[in-house]
Amino acid sequence: MHFVVKPIGVIRSPYKDVSEAPYQGRFSNDVCKIEIFKEFEEGLKDVETCSHIIVLYWLDKAKRDVLRARPPHNGMIHGVFATRSPHRPNPIGFAVVELVERMGRILKIRGLDAIDGTPVIDIKPYFPQIDCIPNARVGWFEKVKRFKT
Amino acid sequence: MHFVVKPIGVIRSPYKDVSEAPYQGRFSNDVCKIEIFKEFEEGLKDVETCSHIIVLYWLDKAKRDVLRARPPHNGMIHGVFATRSPHRPNPIGFAVVELVERMGRILKIRGLDAIDGTPVIDIKPYFPQIDCIPNARVGWFEKVKRFKT
Repeated sequence: MHFVVKPIGVIRSPYKDVSEAPYQGRFSNDVCKIEIFKEFEEGLKDVETCSHIIVLYWLDKAKRDVLRARPPHNGMIHGVFATRSPHRPNPIGFAVVELVERMGRILKIRGLDAIDGTPVIDIKPYFPQIDCIPNARVGWFEKVKRFKT
Repeated sequence: MHFVVKPIGVIRSPYKDVSEAPYQGRFSNDVCKIEIFKEFEEGLKDVETCSHIIVLYWLDKAKRDVLRARPPHNGMIHGVFATRSPHRPNPIGFAVVELVERMGRILKIRGLDAIDGTPVIDIKPYFPQIDCIPNARVGWFEKVKRFKT
């Protein structure tokens, strides 16, 4: 069993490869653009009323055959499903970004670390009522307590 | 261009079809299970240290050829990318759920509205530092201000 995902757009960012991208986009002030393809533009109606959106994208340079990752935070090995490593069986990137401006089918956004040309596969509105859990904890991360940016 | 997604597991929920599922799982106390397939079990290492996880799943009953949706909140039509409608070009469900317990490759979770048998395609740890935006706004939703549960 498998499913087929089609790109709905593409990320235009200042990062040409992984070495140029911030480690964690949420703490970056750089503005990127998402270009939604013309055939999907109708799906953007009213997205400009969102202050923040969820972006799902396809990490087409990631390895799919790894199940363990060693994030830079603590040098320990964790299962990929306990990390945000791009390398995972289905390399779907997830980010909550600030929607700065919509210009037709171009979304100007802040807070993404994806490299230029990354395919976008979905956009969703971010609702704090259902998506914000201030007291959530990631136990293995608690000894580190800060993100590498 | 297209990408192939493989299920990494399956959702076991008390909801046999859409009519039985809560409209918004985040406000439900029901406990569901995610069964991760044996070949991916290694990827779960340390996930039990997370209080909340992000679940990406494949809405295999959704329509993929619609770009507008009419959520029940206000009766208005919006673009699918401004709503959380299951019907969208790539029908990927997204939910932040409470991880109640891990038992081997079974994750007991609370806060999901997916129907029994729904394929799971990714699990990620929820980090409030990067995933929680308390003051985010969805303009079109502001006239409604509450979720149908």
